[in-house]
Amino acid sequence: MDRLETVDRQPEQIRHDVRTGAIAGQTSGLAPGFAQGNLVILPKQWATDFLRFCLENPKPCPLLAVGNPGDPSLANAGRNIDIRSDVPSYRVFRNGRLVEEIADIRHIWRDDFVSFLIGCSFSFEWALLNAGIGVRHIELGSNVPMYRTNIDCVSAGPFSGQFVVSMRPMKPADAIRAIEITAAMPQVHGAPVHFGDPLAIGISDLSRPDFGDSVPVKEGEVPVFWACGVTPQVALAEAKPPIAVTHSPGCMLITDIRDEDLLNGTFRFEAPAL
Amino acid sequence: MDRLETVDRQPEQIRHDVRTGAIAGQTSGLAPGFAQGNLVILPKQWATDFLRFCLENPKPCPLLAVGNPGDPSLANAGRNIDIRSDVPSYRVFRNGRLVEEIADIRHIWRDDFVSFLIGCSFSFEWALLNAGIGVRHIELGSNVPMYRTNIDCVSAGPFSGQFVVSMRPMKPADAIRAIEITAAMPQVHGAPVHFGDPLAIGISDLSRPDFGDSVPVKEGEVPVFWACGVTPQVALAEAKPPIAVTHSPGCMLITDIRDEDLLNGTFRFEAPAL
Repeated sequence: MDRLETVDRQPEQIRHDVRTGAIAGQTSGLAPGFAQGNLVILPKQWATDFLRFCLENPKPCPLLAVGNPGDPSLANAGRNIDIRSDVPSYRVFRNGRLVEEIADIRHIWRDDFVSFLIGCSFSFEWALLNAGIGVRHIELGSNVPMYRTNIDCVSAGPFSGQFVVSMRPMKPADAIRAIEITAAMPQVHGAPVHFGDPLAIGISDLSRPDFGDSVPVKEGEVPVFWACGVTPQVALAEAKPPIAVTHSPGCMLITDIRDEDLLNGTFRFEAPAL
Repeated sequence: MDRLETVDRQPEQIRHDVRTGAIAGQTSGLAPGFAQGNLVILPKQWATDFLRFCLENPKPCPLLAVGNPGDPSLANAGRNIDIRSDVPSYRVFRNGRLVEEIADIRHIWRDDFVSFLIGCSFSFEWALLNAGIGVRHIELGSNVPMYRTNIDCVSAGPFSGQFVVSMRPMKPADAIRAIEITAAMPQVHGAPVHFGDPLAIGISDLSRPDFGDSVPVKEGEVPVFWACGVTPQVALAEAKPPIAVTHSPGCMLITDIRDEDLLNGTFRFEAPAL
């Protein structure tokens, strides 16, 4: 990727600091203007179905990069990435059950591990804020509220489940502009999947999100729902592979991909042959 | 416009039949796939402010073409147009008051008349139907419901007023796709200006449109509101120029501009120096 040659070294420096332990914890706000990614690592035997699951469900699982089996670099996402150490905290799942949360996975890395990097709403929130559209949970300094829904994913092998969505309340005129903006960013969840009545997508109580924090919906606002990167984690928990590794919530991989390139269509994901 | 050379002769044939009187009345459904336009004709003395009004209010008044003073052709909109005879029915306003409705304006044409052609929702409805999104008033064979709102236009000289909007009820998922599609068609009103609560934009009773016919909003649907080409007519009625000519409602100018070129951005309006 020649384009990366001109990139600011900030993301690479932050990854280095994460690798050495100088930076730990959540990555929100680090390397502003650069995309962060949700991580899923699976053995090759499970990776083909998971790739298909992501490609069939691009709204909750928009792919930014996929690694070669056994290769801990992710060249399409940034220079000198070591996916075994460049995320501040990892979750290890065995048979669908969370067994440990660790800062480094070099000791459990395998020759058949395939890394999937999935786009994250931080990038479209960057675009919304740039357009002058307020994002409630950012204003409140809390996590975005997320909900399980009744919207079925397209199944692929053992991977199935329902969309998890994130919610941002907006006035209709802002929601229309937010739809226009995020529609242009398919690699980071794209346009919303719903707005208005939560019950229409199986959410019975907006004040009790399944993940993250509740935020108020003010007079004259409607809740707007985007497909969310927690969806693949729910699908993993259902599929119960013998081993899987993800990032810990909020502790993302910081990439060299510019949010701007996700907005103007310069960055494009090309599916690998697994 | 070289591009027009390859165009189907259907629109030109229809304009010819309108000119000779072989076709009369509403133009809805004629020359499918080709844009139809709202017409406003004003003396040059009023045209500069009206051009500014359109450019400042592109959602209700998106321009497709503007004629040269005294010139009844509109080369940017089609071959061999004679704007004095190619619209099935004209409305003549004197001092803001409708004084007659006639099939030909050759006898009142003046050397200082400037023609403005404004994009029409027929083109985006074509795009919605192509995307499999139902349009209620088309399904019912009625006129789209239109409403006066409290959304102020940007004023320009004597031209001012509030947006008139058209309404199409949709389920939220269809509304999101409709927003994506129409956002790509700025020359035919672009993305909606509002959805949901009608009162938020000053509409007190959805079942009583100010123009057109009422349509039902079904369970699970929300009303979606687009800026409407009736807005400039309301602004004209307020400005009260000594003379103005418009098309009669539903009796549009059929152009050689393909709806497809409005969707893919091939067609672009360039503002003239008046």
